[in-house]
Amino acid sequence: MKTLPRILAFLFLAGPIHAADPLPSWNDGTAKRSIIAFIEKVTKEGSPDFVPVAERIATFDNDGCLWAEQPMYFQAFFIFDRIKALAPQHPEWKDTEPFASALKGDVKSALAGGEHALLEMAMATHAGMTTEEFEKIVKDWIATARHPVSKRLYTEMVYQPMLEMLSYLRANGFKTFIVSGGGVEFMRPWTEQVYGIPPEQVIGSSIKTKFELRDGKPVIVRLPELNFIDDKAGKPAAIQHHIGRRPVMAFGNSDGDLQMLQWTAAGNGPRFCLYIHHTDAVREWAYDRASHIGRLDKGLDEAMAKSWTVVSMKDDWNQVYPMQ
Amino acid sequence: MKTLPRILAFLFLAGPIHAADPLPSWNDGTAKRSIIAFIEKVTKEGSPDFVPVAERIATFDNDGCLWAEQPMYFQAFFIFDRIKALAPQHPEWKDTEPFASALKGDVKSALAGGEHALLEMAMATHAGMTTEEFEKIVKDWIATARHPVSKRLYTEMVYQPMLEMLSYLRANGFKTFIVSGGGVEFMRPWTEQVYGIPPEQVIGSSIKTKFELRDGKPVIVRLPELNFIDDKAGKPAAIQHHIGRRPVMAFGNSDGDLQMLQWTAAGNGPRFCLYIHHTDAVREWAYDRASHIGRLDKGLDEAMAKSWTVVSMKDDWNQVYPMQ
Repeated sequence: MKTLPRILAFLFLAGPIHAADPLPSWNDGTAKRSIIAFIEKVTKEGSPDFVPVAERIATFDNDGCLWAEQPMYFQAFFIFDRIKALAPQHPEWKDTEPFASALKGDVKSALAGGEHALLEMAMATHAGMTTEEFEKIVKDWIATARHPVSKRLYTEMVYQPMLEMLSYLRANGFKTFIVSGGGVEFMRPWTEQVYGIPPEQVIGSSIKTKFELRDGKPVIVRLPELNFIDDKAGKPAAIQHHIGRRPVMAFGNSDGDLQMLQWTAAGNGPRFCLYIHHTDAVREWAYDRASHIGRLDKGLDEAMAKSWTVVSMKDDWNQVYPMQ
Repeated sequence: MKTLPRILAFLFLAGPIHAADPLPSWNDGTAKRSIIAFIEKVTKEGSPDFVPVAERIATFDNDGCLWAEQPMYFQAFFIFDRIKALAPQHPEWKDTEPFASALKGDVKSALAGGEHALLEMAMATHAGMTTEEFEKIVKDWIATARHPVSKRLYTEMVYQPMLEMLSYLRANGFKTFIVSGGGVEFMRPWTEQVYGIPPEQVIGSSIKTKFELRDGKPVIVRLPELNFIDDKAGKPAAIQHHIGRRPVMAFGNSDGDLQMLQWTAAGNGPRFCLYIHHTDAVREWAYDRASHIGRLDKGLDEAMAKSWTVVSMKDDWNQVYPMQ
């Protein structure tokens, strides 16, 4: 029993015990303080701002909010990689745009046809298989494909400060949801492992599917037809459709998230809206009002007018990715 | 400290301590035993049938599975009540079918137009307001409307044995979901209180919605256009779309649930499918292969062929509703 006095000595000598910083990658500043102050007030029982656990819903955009999105959405890299992988089964692609350009690695020409070209490539690569087959394709790709600039795995380009945010909110009773313009079945195979967000808390864009029996075996087949685009005004509609409760906190980085933040902010009681502003050209990318990907223009104006929290990646984050 | 010997005496005299029965409204029999045996094997760590908590998904049909559905779906009573409430704003309904018959209380004639008539009445009563307004309408109705036969509140016609089942599964780490042909926004206002199922775990049929700013205030407006019918082959597709994980357990009572049960049963590892068979003409209703509402025909054959659990309401339940 020699250790007991030592333990007691340690307890007294160590002085007051402070809780560990839940957001160590966040520099002390207005953004970090606003987050912590909000969590403290909504979780304090008896406070007028107290929010019951069942109502603690937090929604996060994915591209540019939880992971990077430059020089183009990571799902677009997936599409181009899949076109290359599928080319042997489609000899006609050699002479058909946008596939011909995609196969030459000429992304710009492949995308010259705009939304229509992108949709055609998306359908050619995302439909025509069962949901289980597609899940395996995504898992294999995400485990091996590397970003052309950073040469990292795409899942290594998630934001360390946002991983801390997700954990911090969950430790305070929040259910964390993704509400992304990305494909829901493109995200689900890896969000649980990478973000701790289970498939049932991932909302995204989708194509139509069809249940059928194949030789008596039930399968769900992915059809080459859009079902829902989860962007802009689609986001609050999808939140209502899927969650049926208005978020208490919402996190985004582009004008595509503005309606989600407006919907969140307009709820009764305490609400918290946050925009990530991509200001770090050295460690990540710097872009906002004029960017084609992740444009933040109207959203930035409204965030300033409504005093939402705006995070400057450069100033507020002392670390960007999990591995420096 | 006189009490210590008494406590010790109690502990020894009381004999072995048994856990309380988690399903007291279920008679001892094949059905109850199959449920308990399944839960015990999938929750036993180290067992080959162990299912991690994150994968413990259980899906329940609502009409006829969690609450009654005779002499017609309870949401149909809601529709007829709403037509009466809205009639003053629609003088033209007096001379227009199916509304004229509905207003006279002639349900049979109102439904003579089949699916088209029902859809028309559903749209007239479920669309044209914001999601918040509709939620309030449902809450007010469900708190006061009474079933024409039993004279009970509709929420008093939920099945006590299934309430016990929901609690039992949740106590064993399952996430419980509703997957119903009923309207998702018709169920969410009361499922949390009545079943302990939060809105984000309710999947149902839906109409289209639209986010908009009204005088700067964000609202989601309900549109008179079908979005999705969550029935038959729609159920597994909706499960995949909303949950993104195959259920481990599925509960239904009609052919409309068959594809959900097929999809569940076809997963790898342990799966459990259960059909409730309405066999109790005295305490509830007796119907199956020939019923217009909740027909159980093909499903009953497949359940027998595949040895799914079939519950006879008459024989397996010693209590039907929470209040006798």
